[in-house]
Amino acid sequence: MRAILHVCTTCRGIDPDAPLEPRPGARLHDTLSLSDLPEGVELRPVECLSACSMGCSVALSAPGKWSYVYGRLTPDDAADILAGAGAYAAAPDGLVPWRERPVIFRKQSLARIPPQE
Amino acid sequence: MRAILHVCTTCRGIDPDAPLEPRPGARLHDTLSLSDLPEGVELRPVECLSACSMGCSVALSAPGKWSYVYGRLTPDDAADILAGAGAYAAAPDGLVPWRERPVIFRKQSLARIPPQE
Repeated sequence: MRAILHVCTTCRGIDPDAPLEPRPGARLHDTLSLSDLPEGVELRPVECLSACSMGCSVALSAPGKWSYVYGRLTPDDAADILAGAGAYAAAPDGLVPWRERPVIFRKQSLARIPPQE
Repeated sequence: MRAILHVCTTCRGIDPDAPLEPRPGARLHDTLSLSDLPEGVELRPVECLSACSMGCSVALSAPGKWSYVYGRLTPDDAADILAGAGAYAAAPDGLVPWRERPVIFRKQSLARIPPQE
């Protein structure tokens, strides 16, 4: 069962000086889509993760696992996002040991949601 | 299939003058647990929704539906939280029309996550 890496393509980011078109969220998605994805990770664009003041944002979800949302990301974070997504996909319950999480996942969590039955 | 209203019981809230014990999140859960729950809604405590700077926080999830996380809540919001949870439980995809959402759900969304297959 794959983990889905949802990337908000409508995020405006939090840098007021960054250009708004193409949207920073779309640029983050483009950067990720040009990268090699870790095993078990599927990339999926989404219009709005309702974290607009904290963009760019991404979410990780998979059946039976905790879901996570991260924010204040930029295209420069693509490699770390993919490393974190790979660790998430490899963790049976989605709970990656703290020290194995990229720093952006430790410090820029917006929320997590318990697994569904 | 019931909607789960997850309530973080470890949230400290955002009011620096509020007492820390019992935790504002635990008090919010207590208030909700003494209320009549809307049809199709199950209340469930959870230790930490990883939205610590935006507590008190709650999350709504159900199979096949978008999941939502809301923050900056207090025990005073219990009635509105339950009204919003009831509308969510009644919406087939979890997408409640904007005007039918309580104001706290319109203005205090922290994130949403697409449905799982």
